[in-house]
Amino acid sequence: MPREILYLKIAKILENQILSETLRTGDKLPSLRSLQKIYNVGLNTAQQAYTLLESKSLIISKPKSGYFVSGTSKRKLALPSVSNPIVTATKNETEYLTYKVFDVLRDKSVRQFSLGVPDEKLLPISKLNKGIIKVMRELDGSGTAFEPAQGSLNLRRNIAKWSLAREGELSEDDIITTLGTMNAIYLCLNAVTKPGDTIATESPVYFGILQLAKSMGLNILELPTHPVTGVDLEALKQNINKIDLCCFTCNFNNPLGSLMPDENKKALVELLTHYNVPLVDDDLFGVLHFGETHPTLCKNYDEAGIVMSCGGFSKTLAPGYRIGWIEPGQFKEKILWNKLVQTVAMPSLLQEVIADFMENGRYDHHLRVLRHTLYTNCLKFQQTIEEHFPDNTKISQPQGGFFLWLELDKKIDTRELYDIAIRQKISFAPGSLFTGHNQFNNCMRLNFALKWDEHVYQDLRRLGNMVKRQINL
Amino acid sequence: MPREILYLKIAKILENQILSETLRTGDKLPSLRSLQKIYNVGLNTAQQAYTLLESKSLIISKPKSGYFVSGTSKRKLALPSVSNPIVTATKNETEYLTYKVFDVLRDKSVRQFSLGVPDEKLLPISKLNKGIIKVMRELDGSGTAFEPAQGSLNLRRNIAKWSLAREGELSEDDIITTLGTMNAIYLCLNAVTKPGDTIATESPVYFGILQLAKSMGLNILELPTHPVTGVDLEALKQNINKIDLCCFTCNFNNPLGSLMPDENKKALVELLTHYNVPLVDDDLFGVLHFGETHPTLCKNYDEAGIVMSCGGFSKTLAPGYRIGWIEPGQFKEKILWNKLVQTVAMPSLLQEVIADFMENGRYDHHLRVLRHTLYTNCLKFQQTIEEHFPDNTKISQPQGGFFLWLELDKKIDTRELYDIAIRQKISFAPGSLFTGHNQFNNCMRLNFALKWDEHVYQDLRRLGNMVKRQINL
Repeated sequence: MPREILYLKIAKILENQILSETLRTGDKLPSLRSLQKIYNVGLNTAQQAYTLLESKSLIISKPKSGYFVSGTSKRKLALPSVSNPIVTATKNETEYLTYKVFDVLRDKSVRQFSLGVPDEKLLPISKLNKGIIKVMRELDGSGTAFEPAQGSLNLRRNIAKWSLAREGELSEDDIITTLGTMNAIYLCLNAVTKPGDTIATESPVYFGILQLAKSMGLNILELPTHPVTGVDLEALKQNINKIDLCCFTCNFNNPLGSLMPDENKKALVELLTHYNVPLVDDDLFGVLHFGETHPTLCKNYDEAGIVMSCGGFSKTLAPGYRIGWIEPGQFKEKILWNKLVQTVAMPSLLQEVIADFMENGRYDHHLRVLRHTLYTNCLKFQQTIEEHFPDNTKISQPQGGFFLWLELDKKIDTRELYDIAIRQKISFAPGSLFTGHNQFNNCMRLNFALKWDEHVYQDLRRLGNMVKRQINL
Repeated sequence: MPREILYLKIAKILENQILSETLRTGDKLPSLRSLQKIYNVGLNTAQQAYTLLESKSLIISKPKSGYFVSGTSKRKLALPSVSNPIVTATKNETEYLTYKVFDVLRDKSVRQFSLGVPDEKLLPISKLNKGIIKVMRELDGSGTAFEPAQGSLNLRRNIAKWSLAREGELSEDDIITTLGTMNAIYLCLNAVTKPGDTIATESPVYFGILQLAKSMGLNILELPTHPVTGVDLEALKQNINKIDLCCFTCNFNNPLGSLMPDENKKALVELLTHYNVPLVDDDLFGVLHFGETHPTLCKNYDEAGIVMSCGGFSKTLAPGYRIGWIEPGQFKEKILWNKLVQTVAMPSLLQEVIADFMENGRYDHHLRVLRHTLYTNCLKFQQTIEEHFPDNTKISQPQGGFFLWLELDKKIDTRELYDIAIRQKISFAPGSLFTGHNQFNNCMRLNFALKWDEHVYQDLRRLGNMVKRQINL
């Protein structure tokens, strides 16, 4: 058979398998080499078949991973609305709700779609443990001695080296390690703001930031945020005179999964430089990109040093180790001094374990596997939700990270739904946690950083049925 | 020979050995059993010999340790003066001096009399390492998972249990673990004060507290402090209306080594309760008592819950682990909330290692050995200083901890002496670090938590000679 028709035939076979769901969303297709063997064709033919399927959006190519059945061809759910917090009244404390949701975190009989970190099964625990033993033997005093105030030199060196891949120009001296990423944000705010100041955030926004700002006596201005592109820069510009600092997660915002385009990052930094408003950019999810490369950081556009970039290992490697960092820009001295007087130093042992893990590409390898798993899970979650949730459900389209943000029928109050679901041993994070305003009451955040299996599918299905029942009441 | 004369003879032999320095200050005498064997006498005779020597202040008995050659019989140096900061002008930053002194900390060719923690050789590192391996295997997720915001349950339980010995009535719920003791103090101040408030401290006082208070925008009122009994309560009473919080180290103050008598602690707590002034009582040295039992805490007299007690393991076990705790009294909710929003949680692994070490009395055993070492070193340091420093040197008489505070001839500026000594590879902490006022310029703090040997003796001797030379200039 002529080659050009052969590739069409192969593509047709695969297309049918996809449409009949023999091959399901997120499933990995045969490699090019395997395809050649199966159909006894050359590389070109195999490649052409896949190129055709890609052009039809039936499959997606992930570099160094392979080809996957794409979800987009079936997408029928809309994106969530853009928030508009400025016109929405503020509300009372969400603290009780936070306690209620996160009190059940350790209950292993509950499906934890509410977690803020990856499931333990996705973490390289035994490799880290080997690292603990190794470091314990090599470290001066086995970790009983103080480390420098700025943090483990080895870890800072590895972070600097590793950031080169992101067009960074860091040296270890540009980095301060912290007790996790919330602590990094806290140290930045502590150095740069004072009680009574106003900080601008995204909306929805991780509730930890709302709670932290409130505890520091700061006012919060939530800005409208687009589920794909992030913060609305026009709204920011209109309110710039009220704002003392911006605190954003430009790469894969929690919970929206939005990714601010490069040109917006550039414009954002220019705007803030002009008005001398510092920016805390929390990049704790940046490495969990589904695309080919790590997205840029606002810091890449920062000449004046007004951007404080934060990073960490809580979402990717070891949440309980509590290790994050700040690239502090012009605020280094103040941040470092505060860290020193408030804590003297951090424990060195676990920082050295992570530094050791980063050497020789082991962290890179772990991240590649994790990204692959997350991307696949994202597609499977989306497909399952499309199947079993009501048609008017809106769902985010994250390009990285591990959260999905759902906007349900306006009849639904997800705080009430939470109580129903928890009796069925399913937990999620109700939307109203993610704002200080009276909004998102029909929204929820789901975490897909877990091991996908039939039980996860069934739990999502049951959750969808609960939503349908609530609508029909 | 009649028994009553036999004990006199034995006592005389030992007395001659002590006076001729065959037996030197701090040396351990034969046990009663050994004495019986050596002189072929019964227990009563041996006991009587030692009782006679004790009555002459030639030896000291330490329960469960034995008998030691006492230093007091030779004591000829006076105690340091009581400070009077209120009438002394304040001065500029000591920050540069702090950096200068503590920059050389990692230089192993320098004799570090300036250290704030025990020498590594006094720490049970290999036992702790065994603990790391054990805990790593047993801990959920090997330490990669979050622990409760209040801190490791096992550790809090062990601290509570262990405090029973101090007439405490703690439960694990009354304890919040922190990132070391400075962090404990910081969290207390952060919860209870606001910028512009005034805190009262001892004088001299650990410079970390001065730096912390300053970074938090707090004013500091240093109070006159007696080298044996601690803070002058009269001065406190006279200034009580200016004070928003007191921050003291009532047991073995750093650097004076003072120990506030029980009746003063009671009066202090009554005074502060009456005026509703909270007290942060930092008990990080309390376990390093030279006497038989742990001194009382101010908290033992606290009915209203105004006392926040802090403790830690930085001075006794593992400085680099960064583990301390607060017994927060009525301020628990606020302190816990701040810890949660600023750090989410601490790393659990090392807390579990310490909890494990505390089980089965291993920490108690380590402390007994450490106390013995410190007490012996204290006597040896004092004797060496009495021998080789000028006669008008004044020296503290700590009843615990591991610091000696020296007040030298008024001609001496210990900041200049520091530069001379460092060229001779000897480091100490200049007195002016320990105050925000223009005082203590002729004082120094020495750390005796190290392994005593001939080199230490020679370094002290050389330091004494440097002081003599400075006086004669």
